[in-house]
Amino acid sequence: MAQNSWVDQLKPSLPDGPSTLAHERGGSSIDVDAFAQHVLGGEYLQRQQQVLEILQKEKVFSKEKQANLSRPERYMLGLARGKRMRQLQDKHGWSDDDHEMAKYLVDEISPFQLQNTMFRQTLREQTDEAQRAYWLRRCEDWDIVGAYAQTELGHGSNVQGVETTATWDQSTKEFVIHSPTLTASKWWNGTLGKTANHAVVIAQLMLPDPSAPTTGKTRFKSFGPHPFIVQVRDMKSHLPLEGVVVGDIGAKFGYDSMDNAYMLMNQVSALLARYSAVDPETGAYRAPENRAVVYGSLTHARKRIVMAARLMLARAVTVAIRYCAVRRQFKSKDNPGAEHESSVLDYTTVQIRLFPLLATGFALHYSGKVMGEVYDRTRSAVEEEGNLSNLIDLHSLSSGLKSLSTELATSGIETARRAMGGHGFGGETGLIGLSRDYLSKPTVEGDNWMITQQMARYLLKKAKLIVSQPGLKPSNRTESTLAQYWQINCDKKLPRTSRPLDVLNSDSDIVAAFEHRSSFLTFQAYEASEVHGKGYDKLMIRLHDLSNAQSEAILVYNFYDQLSADTKLPFSTKQVIWKLFRLFALFTMSKHSRDFERSGAVPKRDLDALADDHLVDIMASIRPHAVSIVDSWKFPDYLLNR
Amino acid sequence: MAQNSWVDQLKPSLPDGPSTLAHERGGSSIDVDAFAQHVLGGEYLQRQQQVLEILQKEKVFSKEKQANLSRPERYMLGLARGKRMRQLQDKHGWSDDDHEMAKYLVDEISPFQLQNTMFRQTLREQTDEAQRAYWLRRCEDWDIVGAYAQTELGHGSNVQGVETTATWDQSTKEFVIHSPTLTASKWWNGTLGKTANHAVVIAQLMLPDPSAPTTGKTRFKSFGPHPFIVQVRDMKSHLPLEGVVVGDIGAKFGYDSMDNAYMLMNQVSALLARYSAVDPETGAYRAPENRAVVYGSLTHARKRIVMAARLMLARAVTVAIRYCAVRRQFKSKDNPGAEHESSVLDYTTVQIRLFPLLATGFALHYSGKVMGEVYDRTRSAVEEEGNLSNLIDLHSLSSGLKSLSTELATSGIETARRAMGGHGFGGETGLIGLSRDYLSKPTVEGDNWMITQQMARYLLKKAKLIVSQPGLKPSNRTESTLAQYWQINCDKKLPRTSRPLDVLNSDSDIVAAFEHRSSFLTFQAYEASEVHGKGYDKLMIRLHDLSNAQSEAILVYNFYDQLSADTKLPFSTKQVIWKLFRLFALFTMSKHSRDFERSGAVPKRDLDALADDHLVDIMASIRPHAVSIVDSWKFPDYLLNR
Repeated sequence: MAQNSWVDQLKPSLPDGPSTLAHERGGSSIDVDAFAQHVLGGEYLQRQQQVLEILQKEKVFSKEKQANLSRPERYMLGLARGKRMRQLQDKHGWSDDDHEMAKYLVDEISPFQLQNTMFRQTLREQTDEAQRAYWLRRCEDWDIVGAYAQTELGHGSNVQGVETTATWDQSTKEFVIHSPTLTASKWWNGTLGKTANHAVVIAQLMLPDPSAPTTGKTRFKSFGPHPFIVQVRDMKSHLPLEGVVVGDIGAKFGYDSMDNAYMLMNQVSALLARYSAVDPETGAYRAPENRAVVYGSLTHARKRIVMAARLMLARAVTVAIRYCAVRRQFKSKDNPGAEHESSVLDYTTVQIRLFPLLATGFALHYSGKVMGEVYDRTRSAVEEEGNLSNLIDLHSLSSGLKSLSTELATSGIETARRAMGGHGFGGETGLIGLSRDYLSKPTVEGDNWMITQQMARYLLKKAKLIVSQPGLKPSNRTESTLAQYWQINCDKKLPRTSRPLDVLNSDSDIVAAFEHRSSFLTFQAYEASEVHGKGYDKLMIRLHDLSNAQSEAILVYNFYDQLSADTKLPFSTKQVIWKLFRLFALFTMSKHSRDFERSGAVPKRDLDALADDHLVDIMASIRPHAVSIVDSWKFPDYLLNR
Repeated sequence: MAQNSWVDQLKPSLPDGPSTLAHERGGSSIDVDAFAQHVLGGEYLQRQQQVLEILQKEKVFSKEKQANLSRPERYMLGLARGKRMRQLQDKHGWSDDDHEMAKYLVDEISPFQLQNTMFRQTLREQTDEAQRAYWLRRCEDWDIVGAYAQTELGHGSNVQGVETTATWDQSTKEFVIHSPTLTASKWWNGTLGKTANHAVVIAQLMLPDPSAPTTGKTRFKSFGPHPFIVQVRDMKSHLPLEGVVVGDIGAKFGYDSMDNAYMLMNQVSALLARYSAVDPETGAYRAPENRAVVYGSLTHARKRIVMAARLMLARAVTVAIRYCAVRRQFKSKDNPGAEHESSVLDYTTVQIRLFPLLATGFALHYSGKVMGEVYDRTRSAVEEEGNLSNLIDLHSLSSGLKSLSTELATSGIETARRAMGGHGFGGETGLIGLSRDYLSKPTVEGDNWMITQQMARYLLKKAKLIVSQPGLKPSNRTESTLAQYWQINCDKKLPRTSRPLDVLNSDSDIVAAFEHRSSFLTFQAYEASEVHGKGYDKLMIRLHDLSNAQSEAILVYNFYDQLSADTKLPFSTKQVIWKLFRLFALFTMSKHSRDFERSGAVPKRDLDALADDHLVDIMASIRPHAVSIVDSWKFPDYLLNR
């Protein structure tokens, strides 16, 4: 429109965005590249660059107009992208990690998601060799497209309660899958609504009851939920097979591109994955050898969630910090004669929302890293030595951290959005999709309020052990921390630490204060439960709080420990990360200050100082580096511009 | 599909939803109809029924498939609905209240929204008689469709900083509107992106500078932002007029049906609303008589927001409580031999998320009601007696309550959603649209973090007054509460109350504790600011917290006072509402327990009891009534099924 060429000549009022950001970057002593190497590593950064270049050449991955599409259109786009991604994988010989990077950058949940994850993983881990040879190849060649159907309308968290049955038919030596009720409908199962032609279906394994009389009609008994392989759609027409009713469940809070399914089955024949668990002659049950593998894949998923949480949160914080640096509104009441309006990032009421989140990204990073290492060590111990002893520690750690990290990230993304004021409601943030899709995370892979009970019960067991076996040699940090607390406090006087802690001046004392508070809450809950016999239902809320307190102590300890161990970061950069450590820890402390006071970890005087100026002062010292810190996450614009 | 008739015969496993809800309803002593009359009133309930019947007959208002539509399609649907709503208004002689009810039930932001609100309101209040006669009729006949263009790309909260200019042209005796920069682009303006042909545009009123030399080129000076009436599109072609660049800003977090606009203007002629403010002969400025009117319409909008917040929150809680009553998952660890899995509403970890929100709905209700009455009284005083003295109280009240109530509702809607676990991510909740649209509320009509400063500065002024004038006769409850606190605590020893408070056993002591804490925080901030001379930037965070503490005290006081004054509620119903009062107040207290301890309002022992079993016990006593309580909000299924 040539008549509107006057618009093209307009400029923003000064100081504009580019000059403001250049000024911010020039004013920080952070070594952005060294910081990025420290957090992400060279291999990751190189992979990001390589995959990005490939994706950006492909029109189908452009995000420009996707926000205007309908849900059905987003699904179609998702199919096209999934197909192209598979072709690129072949063309460029992408590894699984490359493929993960591509999915991360495209930043949308693919309708083929389950094909590459749970369907393939189940075929790999839960089948015998003959099955594996046949099915895994078909899956990896995309000869078939598979989904994973576990959750039902009536049962999610309580997998043991699924109502779908798989009954052994001695005459045909096959299993027959059936949905006996409406609540047995499979529900939520990704990739199954429209895309898949096969599915792993979790159903109650119904076998002849060995304790029943052998005469008359066979009596069946459930041996619990097991995975079955079922064909659900015709390979040519893609219509549901007879006895299968399947479709898309409709709109959700996010995941527009995904075809989450409902599915009911009326006497459909199926194949038990890992066939060897049932004797084909008699229909008798043989327990599978290795339950730990199943256990392992859940903790694996949770480990990934913690590392992903940090990137999702950091992305939202990156957008918000850059915007708030550029955005100016009002002149400061303390400096009404200023030339320009203040950058809103200078307002302490904006800093208190964004800077603790900035620090949280790194807190999640260090614990995610440590959890990955624990996971790898534990897996090796299981696979190479058959040593299962650390699985329970890993499981409780993964439960507590999954819950807290997704909680912090979900609420943090929303806090960052709102810190952008009016523009935070608009699509220019690039955060709409991220925000909506991420809302699923507090629930999937273990509901956040449910799995904290696992962490808390683990701590209660440890407390019981320590009280009953005073001389016990601690086998890990949790035990030694609890044992030390108990040694000092078993006299039940006012709770106290082994020495007075100075959290305002000592970083190691901050760690000790968090561990002391968690121990205090552990033994409080132990006393309520074991000494006063309080029922479990009444304890659940404080167990939830206990798990979060312990997870916070873990985040604080790992942040401190990993940063102390580093020898490569430039001094001036590291100084700033130490400030982020203090901000994360002390901000968290101020949110739960009464815990710290009651437990005797921190004196009233110090908590008052926190509430007054201490946090404000730390934030002021972080302010000049805020833009450079978010730069260190190296998010490509392609990802941010979603 | 006859071949799938087996699906139609399936039933949910027992106990199913209808029998569970019937059982819940039978087990409560709440008189639902009496409660509904108390909260909503007969007139409201009758209007809801009448309008509902009309809407449900119209296919265009069906919500069945709207979740699958694209954003552009939602806009088209919004246009059709807006048009039909206007026809129904004529047909049934709907009042403004009837029309508001219809919009509430259709539950979508109309692309005609600004036509009926800010555009009409400005024409009504900001024009002289001749303008009003001409423009208001055209607006009300929908002869023209108007929008309201205040916010710009570069300025939202700071309206004084808008960059669009309206310069007086002495030769034509007209105003010329111009966008001098990109950041002067009008942005966010509803109804303007595609729908409107006219707009009220807020621009800097540029008039000849009276202090400039009278020779040479006229020097212009801004007299601040004023409203102008501008035609933006051709009445026949609907194309933008020459010099106007206008369009839709694209996707947002919500408001899919609304065409929020960008607009730039290149020397476009316009009409100053309330023309009398400029002398047409000389271009000299005459200040408008009554600034209070403008002030009034902002507080009016905020009053509505508080009352709307309660319904939005209550709706989400209604869905979540009914679902959690029906949903069963796991057997209780305290009762593993139970016949059925537990209703998840029996878990204390679900109750602690939903029941405080259940109570919050009523807390917002009573303060919204009181605020409405204060508003009406203040308006009459202004209009009938020219008495502006209460405007400042009302403004601070509306600022604090708008911020806190939308904060509570926004986070509460999300908490309720998550309490539904996996299904909380699905569209069957009916909450997707509500949740997305409501995300705008913490920012619009005054950003929540900004306007709390207004409430806090009001309190600081009151504190200053009380310290400087010890014998002052208090003019309202805030002043008398602060004066009483100061009388007892001006010696600056450890802060104390006039008598020991027993919040676990006395409802009036709960009120006193909240008011004491707010007074404590007020005088702390006063001391930091006035005695220690702390800069404003450093104080902002604690002023924000102070405003929330004061607003919480107001919510608690009004809840207590209104419920005490009621004489009509059946005894057994009222008993339950008192429990909701205690839960709201004590849950809020437990979130900020250290404030209450530091201020000397509540002893450590009582705060420990709260953290232990006191809240759990109150929730247990509310549990049998939860479903009946949400029934009392009388939400029609048409609204819930969105």
